[in-house]
Amino acid sequence: MEEQNLHHRPGSPVRSGIPEHGRIPKYYAVKALIADLLDDLGEGGLLPTERDLAERYEVSRETVRQALRELLLEGRLRRSGRGTVVAGPKLEQPLSLASYTEGVRRQGRRPGRNLIGLERFPCPPELAPGIGAGPGEPVWHLERVLLADDERVGLESTYISVARAPRLDSEFQPDSSFYGYLRDRLGISFGDADEKLETVLATPREALLIGTPPALPMLLIHRFSRDQDGRPLERVRSLYRGDRFSFTTHLRPR
Amino acid sequence: MEEQNLHHRPGSPVRSGIPEHGRIPKYYAVKALIADLLDDLGEGGLLPTERDLAERYEVSRETVRQALRELLLEGRLRRSGRGTVVAGPKLEQPLSLASYTEGVRRQGRRPGRNLIGLERFPCPPELAPGIGAGPGEPVWHLERVLLADDERVGLESTYISVARAPRLDSEFQPDSSFYGYLRDRLGISFGDADEKLETVLATPREALLIGTPPALPMLLIHRFSRDQDGRPLERVRSLYRGDRFSFTTHLRPR
Repeated sequence: MEEQNLHHRPGSPVRSGIPEHGRIPKYYAVKALIADLLDDLGEGGLLPTERDLAERYEVSRETVRQALRELLLEGRLRRSGRGTVVAGPKLEQPLSLASYTEGVRRQGRRPGRNLIGLERFPCPPELAPGIGAGPGEPVWHLERVLLADDERVGLESTYISVARAPRLDSEFQPDSSFYGYLRDRLGISFGDADEKLETVLATPREALLIGTPPALPMLLIHRFSRDQDGRPLERVRSLYRGDRFSFTTHLRPR
Repeated sequence: MEEQNLHHRPGSPVRSGIPEHGRIPKYYAVKALIADLLDDLGEGGLLPTERDLAERYEVSRETVRQALRELLLEGRLRRSGRGTVVAGPKLEQPLSLASYTEGVRRQGRRPGRNLIGLERFPCPPELAPGIGAGPGEPVWHLERVLLADDERVGLESTYISVARAPRLDSEFQPDSSFYGYLRDRLGISFGDADEKLETVLATPREALLIGTPPALPMLLIHRFSRDQDGRPLERVRSLYRGDRFSFTTHLRPR
């Protein structure tokens, strides 16, 4: 059956369940069957119970549970009030200087942000060059949960020199776009930015704030940005649910 | 202790172990202590045994094991012949039209590739538009393990129309750069490409081919590229070990 599927889904893993020794792990065979079932059910469709699935495929509930665990971590399934349902496709966020707000809106979803905290502290030496502050000079740390259609999907930490945005604590609406604030209130535009992407595990605190299982793989983006004059502006650490986000980019020759 | 560290590592999670209810999970406190120990030991340093760590921190071996499991998945530790050692930093691969080979070389590592297979098959309809072939026309699928300094770090599947590269099976050295072959032997240059990045779990077969633990989070890049005349050229599915790779990009205003 796997061999038959070999060339039918070019985006999918090739012969994905079959190690070189030729045996398919039982949970993985069940996972493939459930994945086909999800295609039939369609987005939002309610998954049968673990017990039903175990009976249907004639395997133990623990085997079903292992298959479901991976499908949840991969974002094929999600928990809802009604039970476990078929998840929609991942959000595709462009890697660009545009803000999170713009990116989510472009996909017809409603962006939102919940404030976790805004703190002021003396700039540590490692942070100083990235935001153009001297060591010990005051720095803002703005931390917000990212929302899409009221679902918590990420966590964002922004660091910027207090000298750059002195009234951030009184003027800025924490549920609005920070980039909109910089542009409209302070006349600061973005010049360019360096980004680094990696996959990490959510820490216990992050998992709690975002509402994810603790070991969920996350996508972490570090951003160092400069203003229109090339001066270091902000440092951002953005964490996105790995089961809900993908990132896209368009490459051209240098 | 965590509170003290709050502003000392801007790239690190903020108060990472402390959920809102204020309790640090025990394994996470141990993980933070071991992470400090890794900094002291330095790259390549040999980690004490689980038993020694359990005695040192006065916790159970299971607690130590959970902390080590996360540090391994995150790429802070790696297994070696001698035992578990402190891993080096993740490789930083630029998101660019340059090949894997060039990206790895630029970091002073030795790139390599091991052939898994080269197959010819009739193009399925979903694949056809992306590579400029008609449905049913012959297509190559080239699958290779990616190496850096002889370490297996990823798995790459390339799909290209046989009409584009008719003698791929006889002319191409599978351990060399495919892009070099296209350019030097066939006079095909890259125009542009669309890429999508996401995090996925390695399948059992992929884990075996790359030599990773099965549940290791991976970075998956889908590439659709076009040649210098804007014609669809190839489709590539590249899977990189999440504990060994990060990706960088430079953003400019549109």
